[in-house]
Amino acid sequence: MKNERFEMGTEMLNKVDGHAGENVIASLENIAPDLGKFTIEFAFGDIYSRPSLTLQEREMITIVSLLTAGGCETQLEVHINGSLNVGIPPEKIIETFLQCVPYTGFPKVLNAVNVAKKVFSTRNILLK
Amino acid sequence: MKNERFEMGTEMLNKVDGHAGENVIASLENIAPDLGKFTIEFAFGDIYSRPSLTLQEREMITIVSLLTAGGCETQLEVHINGSLNVGIPPEKIIETFLQCVPYTGFPKVLNAVNVAKKVFSTRNILLK
Amino acid sequence: MKNERFEMGTEMLNKVDGHAGENVIASLENIAPDLGKFTIEFAFGDIYSRPSLTLQEREMITIVSLLTAGGCETQLEVHINGSLNVGIPPEKIIETFLQCVPYTGFPKVLNAVNVAKKVFSTRNILLK
Amino acid sequence: MKNERFEMGTEMLNKVDGHAGENVIASLENIAPDLGKFTIEFAFGDIYSRPSLTLQEREMITIVSLLTAGGCETQLEVHINGSLNVGIPPEKIIETFLQCVPYTGFPKVLNAVNVAKKVFSTRNILLK
Amino acid sequence: MKNERFEMGTEMLNKVDGHAGENVIASLENIAPDLGKFTIEFAFGDIYSRPSLTLQEREMITIVSLLTAGGCETQLEVHINGSLNVGIPPEKIIETFLQCVPYTGFPKVLNAVNVAKKVFSTRNILLK
Amino acid sequence: MKNERFEMGTEMLNKVDGHAGENVIASLENIAPDLGKFTIEFAFGDIYSRPSLTLQEREMITIVSLLTAGGCETQLEVHINGSLNVGIPPEKIIETFLQCVPYTGFPKVLNAVNVAKKVFSTRNILLK
Repeated sequence: MKNERFEMGTEMLNKVDGHAGENVIASLENIAPDLGKFTIEFAFGDIYSRPSLTLQEREMITIVSLLTAGGCETQLEVHINGSLNVGIPPEKIIETFLQCVPYTGFPKVLNAVNVAKKVFSTRNILLK
Repeated sequence: MKNERFEMGTEMLNKVDGHAGENVIASLENIAPDLGKFTIEFAFGDIYSRPSLTLQEREMITIVSLLTAGGCETQLEVHINGSLNVGIPPEKIIETFLQCVPYTGFPKVLNAVNVAKKVFSTRNILLK
Repeated sequence: MKNERFEMGTEMLNKVDGHAGENVIASLENIAPDLGKFTIEFAFGDIYSRPSLTLQEREMITIVSLLTAGGCETQLEVHINGSLNVGIPPEKIIETFLQCVPYTGFPKVLNAVNVAKKVFSTRNILLK
Repeated sequence: MKNERFEMGTEMLNKVDGHAGENVIASLENIAPDLGKFTIEFAFGDIYSRPSLTLQEREMITIVSLLTAGGCETQLEVHINGSLNVGIPPEKIIETFLQCVPYTGFPKVLNAVNVAKKVFSTRNILLK
Repeated sequence: MKNERFEMGTEMLNKVDGHAGENVIASLENIAPDLGKFTIEFAFGDIYSRPSLTLQEREMITIVSLLTAGGCETQLEVHINGSLNVGIPPEKIIETFLQCVPYTGFPKVLNAVNVAKKVFSTRNILLK
Repeated sequence: MKNERFEMGTEMLNKVDGHAGENVIASLENIAPDLGKFTIEFAFGDIYSRPSLTLQEREMITIVSLLTAGGCETQLEVHINGSLNVGIPPEKIIETFLQCVPYTGFPKVLNAVNVAKKVFSTRNILLK
């Protein structure tokens, strides 16, 4: 059953993640459809749509949390794309990762930069 | 031997962490003075003083990374203070933690909010 | 605004965590009330109230996840109490922690056993 | 030298992991044979063969711990198979992962569901 | 029932951890005695007593693993004492922690140094 | 601008990681060149070149930290090679991983042994 939170979440998901987000939800359809529903309703409907932070700030927070957690390269790829979609310049994504070095050490930052490299390459982005 | 990176780092450390930062460095003096030196030279001299991100953005990244790592309540306390020192409104610090829930789960966010509660109380901050 | 999810979540929270759960929510009131609301609506209203797993199984899963994450002793205390509240025998809580040793190593299991020791002592529970 | 713990562990390993378990042990033969021996003697001989928890409960605990730890997709694959081998219905495995969302966040649960998807597909399991 | 592994493990535990190790085992007696038994038999009987690494190397590995895991300050305290007991000079313990900075970031190293500070102070150790 | 730390770090990087280290730095050139610079200046120039620990000890510490962190298989591959380059016998690398089992559990150790297996195979190393 669709509801207001689901609709708001879907709108937000599309704004942030575009087709990549849709693909994640679709990939859950035959195995854990409610996980897709909760991602939309809770993560995007309840949290992302709150005021007080811009979408750029929310994406920045998300990629830092994913980098620090480690082992979340799949989600990091979705949200580096999301960060670009909401207008964070690629240089600023890299700088965000660099700010993490003193707190996470080099390996996790290297992993995140490698994911960014792949995303930027797919989108034909050349850093200045 | 003092150098340019150390001086720039000290200036940055004072701007961000104030006395709390000085205390961390001082507490290392008789046990691991070089760890204090590297914190100043590398974390604050090399990283914090780079362009492309504001100090508010750098502190936001730092508290998200510390929340996600877990077990870093001592450093989180220093950097929630730092976040306030560079002008992030307390409401925005809490909102930053809320954005982490879908990525870290509730327990780490509850831990971070509890540290914020202590810091806000010490500074007589009342949320609107 | 109260809603169905909130009511169902509150009922579930009371069943599982009793006063300890209420205290966590109350402690968020002046700092992050929405975090309390989301805990009730999402964690307890959406997730805990689903069919397919018993409350005992849900609490078992929760304490294993908290033990493995590390640094979540506060939440572990709440949910060891919750495990007892829904009828898991204390011996089975300890056995659950023992099953984690090959997957997490000894230190995290020792930390969890120490929290259980404190909870059991408060509730005057003596293991057979 | 074979011993009672090794024999009991081998029996338990075969019951839980079947050929997948044997393959893990065999793959260690030329590089770290004692690691295979300890896995059998300690993890399966000492721990899995204890009373107080059913094999289904032990596998449930194991997959929750592996999901929460992160970066253990290889072992998660072995133990999702193990969970099915000891009779946990596939729907209940997915529900177990869903119960983790409030404690680990979405990304680790998405990773685990993706491993389950692969395992279920290999075994021609269709969820209801 | 005592056995060869238990005896060898007890001897090793005493050599490494002295009274602190005994206290950990004793503290488990009324809550999880088998966890103490497994610590002695497996960790100390099976692993610590193997050839190929000196006890100093084993303790160095242990404190690095505990520092990196995070949230294991209690065990770190036991094994910083253990490191001193087997003859690692205090300066080398601190240097071991410093080598971790590029791999774990500063916060976890600061936490470990604070535990070392407490241990050194209790043992009246002054660094050169 | 090259400096003394950069030169010392480059020398150290070459001694430890050989071509693999150079490749990591080169791979960062078009995306995050300063991350490569900091790796050389800070990790290798400031930390690796300090006295008090041998290069063999530093590499042992590094592979233990990477194993424990999890999700750092790429860096583990570089530093298992580094460990061999500075003269740690392959048997001792495996024994180092075994010492971690009681502190990290089996899965992370299995992951590390699998990386070692790949490295040893590439270098035609047969364990005794």
